[in-house]
Amino acid sequence: MNLVLLPASSQIGAQLTVTDPRRLKHLKEVHKAAPGHSLSVGLENGPMGRARLDALDDESAIFTIEHLDTPIPAPLPVHVVLALPRPRMLARSLENMAALGVKQITLLHTRRVEKSYWQSPELAPDKLTHHLILGLEQCKDTRLPTVTLEKRFKPFVEDRLPGLLESAQGLFAHPGETYACPHGRALDAPPVVLAIGPEGGFIDYEVEAFRAADMQGIHLGSRILRVETAVVSLLSRLF
Amino acid sequence: MNLVLLPASSQIGAQLTVTDPRRLKHLKEVHKAAPGHSLSVGLENGPMGRARLDALDDESAIFTIEHLDTPIPAPLPVHVVLALPRPRMLARSLENMAALGVKQITLLHTRRVEKSYWQSPELAPDKLTHHLILGLEQCKDTRLPTVTLEKRFKPFVEDRLPGLLESAQGLFAHPGETYACPHGRALDAPPVVLAIGPEGGFIDYEVEAFRAADMQGIHLGSRILRVETAVVSLLSRLF
Repeated sequence: MNLVLLPASSQIGAQLTVTDPRRLKHLKEVHKAAPGHSLSVGLENGPMGRARLDALDDESAIFTIEHLDTPIPAPLPVHVVLALPRPRMLARSLENMAALGVKQITLLHTRRVEKSYWQSPELAPDKLTHHLILGLEQCKDTRLPTVTLEKRFKPFVEDRLPGLLESAQGLFAHPGETYACPHGRALDAPPVVLAIGPEGGFIDYEVEAFRAADMQGIHLGSRILRVETAVVSLLSRLF
Repeated sequence: MNLVLLPASSQIGAQLTVTDPRRLKHLKEVHKAAPGHSLSVGLENGPMGRARLDALDDESAIFTIEHLDTPIPAPLPVHVVLALPRPRMLARSLENMAALGVKQITLLHTRRVEKSYWQSPELAPDKLTHHLILGLEQCKDTRLPTVTLEKRFKPFVEDRLPGLLESAQGLFAHPGETYACPHGRALDAPPVVLAIGPEGGFIDYEVEAFRAADMQGIHLGSRILRVETAVVSLLSRLF
């Protein structure tokens, strides 16, 4: 991990103080931090820079800030609407989306999403945040994506999607569509709402609902990719 | 999995016969195949089509071929030279590269590759093939990539790389390079040799060796991605 990302409340003057046991464990086990180390640090949704770890024990970690003026990378202009994948694939997809700079994520129920996935402990807010933080720590970014759960397809598409599309272009990835996923959108192009289906894809009704909302179907060629691979592939081609 | 990929030796006339216990387990557990099912089948490095599973028990599986004339997707014109990642990341990267259509893979030692990775059981030929088959079964392709192990950087770069570059363009991915990874290479562009570093990147000596071989450095922006994410991201942008 390339960045230690801490809650904004950690900062007290020129020091950062961590007492949350989960964060302390993360500092020791993931970052292998030790007193004396100078580390890249960031505050959630705040600035980023470097700090020296002065003390680390079972109760707390104390850093002295060296500076907090490293530029934050630009977000991707995209809202990903992802059919809820199975838990392990969700975890990796959240990390990848956070690392690639996605800031809005909707997890959507579609017909081919197994209903049991909605009961997964991976959907608890602190679990979601944990995976997003791993992604941000990997890519050195501090702005946490927002994750919205939409357990019903129709109310999402009819009531919320039109608002999202007011100032964005809608795309949905679906094998067999006419148009290939475009490469390298212009920087001044409108933001994108990108819908990605589950293993097995969207059903016809869902495809028609996206089309009725003026979204455009795109494909990634004849090869069928796993969802977590397709997410990275689509975002890397579009931006 | 979208395709059952079997050894070419399985075909006897209009039937496919499987007796290898590992393949039988894979058929039952991964494909959840049952007699009567019509399945997409392919023969390794051979044709692809559909077959009906007539019988499946602990000793053998017998299919009757329905047809073997489904078009095989085109390979990506790229040879990936990947610094050997840690074993779990290697497994996923092999699956992803196979699924995306990569047919030549070299696993390379570089300074920041942990030497212990070369002792991993994941490097046994049948383990490598297993992960490649999972990737091909995902994307519906039959042509197995070749994997070459290069345990010494210098002899590879000095003795083998020049030959690979005779009819290809060399690119190496490295943060901080001047040029961004290009988007969507033209179909008539020469094939690519694409070098991708380990966690922590190439060292200066390695970068200079690639440059001396006339390879061009490219970057993926300021975000540092995990190797398995970078592999998919680079291939999806280039092709």
